[in-house]
Amino acid sequence: MTHTPRTAGKPNCDDVLQRLTATIAARRGADPATSYVATLFAKGEDAMIKKIGEEATEAVMAAKDGDKLRLTAEMADLWFHCLVVLVKNGLGPADVCAELARREGLSGLEERAARM
Amino acid sequence: MTHTPRTAGKPNCDDVLQRLTATIAARRGADPATSYVATLFAKGEDAMIKKIGEEATEAVMAAKDGDKLRLTAEMADLWFHCLVVLVKNGLGPADVCAELARREGLSGLEERAARM
Amino acid sequence: MTHTPRTAGKPNCDDVLQRLTATIAARRGADPATSYVATLFAKGEDAMIKKIGEEATEAVMAAKDGDKLRLTAEMADLWFHCLVVLVKNGLGPADVCAELARREGLSGLEERAARM
Amino acid sequence: MTHTPRTAGKPNCDDVLQRLTATIAARRGADPATSYVATLFAKGEDAMIKKIGEEATEAVMAAKDGDKLRLTAEMADLWFHCLVVLVKNGLGPADVCAELARREGLSGLEERAARM
Repeated sequence: MTHTPRTAGKPNCDDVLQRLTATIAARRGADPATSYVATLFAKGEDAMIKKIGEEATEAVMAAKDGDKLRLTAEMADLWFHCLVVLVKNGLGPADVCAELARREGLSGLEERAARM
Repeated sequence: MTHTPRTAGKPNCDDVLQRLTATIAARRGADPATSYVATLFAKGEDAMIKKIGEEATEAVMAAKDGDKLRLTAEMADLWFHCLVVLVKNGLGPADVCAELARREGLSGLEERAARM
Repeated sequence: MTHTPRTAGKPNCDDVLQRLTATIAARRGADPATSYVATLFAKGEDAMIKKIGEEATEAVMAAKDGDKLRLTAEMADLWFHCLVVLVKNGLGPADVCAELARREGLSGLEERAARM
Repeated sequence: MTHTPRTAGKPNCDDVLQRLTATIAARRGADPATSYVATLFAKGEDAMIKKIGEEATEAVMAAKDGDKLRLTAEMADLWFHCLVVLVKNGLGPADVCAELARREGLSGLEERAARM
């Protein structure tokens, strides 16, 4: 697996997602008064899970408006809350990306099989 | 920005998300009979957008069940369809990660300001 | 409680929701090949529940478009699948309307209390 | 169309939904400080629409828990916010019920056609 050349000025997604995951894991037991992540963990799992539905709805609405800035912001909200739920379940972005990569491989095989 | 050491055997998220984005962009005009992505693009933007709501609901349900394998698979579905909508809008995962990194920076500043 | 005069030509919601609920309850054990409701019950509870998220997303999208016909149709889809999940749980529309009426009463009391 | 006999002690859904719709319509221009409905109308249509996604997610989660009381309460929240969006679009519950009744009729005809 080779590294895709990064677009100048844009961060590496793997770094960002890993760092954010580490931050979420570190703050899960912090004082809710000082950390949004700690607030979510203090409220319990349902509070985290329902944010996925809420942020997905907001992403859908921004997409309907074709508003690129807001779409980017809502997707960031959605991915952030996905990471929170992943951490809560002892998982991380690498697990999701491994699943995406696995399918990519399968799809490649399926395509080849289809061509033969 | 330094690279976080990768967990052995797990793919680099930046590579996976970039490659998947490139694949989606390449297939958008393909024959719908041979490509799921082409099917979504042929059906139009609403067909892509509504998948975000559907897959978010399935991720919520898998999280409620505490089923790690299914949660990982549903998150992969959700992120995949997020990438489709991003590509449709001329955006990519690096835009979302740039927004996440920007907030991380802001948050750091805010935290420091709060401590002074 | 007095009956609100019905708009000419429009059906009584109580009749429609009760009749639909009775139909859903009657078909839950029918042959999936002949009944959509039986298909949902045969697939299991998750198949019914996730329709609420899907149809809510479609209602959100129709509302964003300000498309009254489609909004009406998507709301009908959403309410129908709400009835399916209610029936599955031994509940019906009267339970939801009782809760709505209870809040109405509470709200009246609260408003009066606030005015004194 | 005959009236279904009402379960003792349970309100008539048509009355409740019509009355709630009238209340929402009456409060849309009220002072946001004294009315939740006025707050939603003051915030604008997106604030109303996104509640459908939020409340649907909470109904999904209550259904996953099989918690009948919470499911009833979340369905009440969901239907209430559906009424708000309907009113905003110059529609009401009778329009949704007319659509449900229309399908019922169609379905009856289709079934009869299938049996011949």
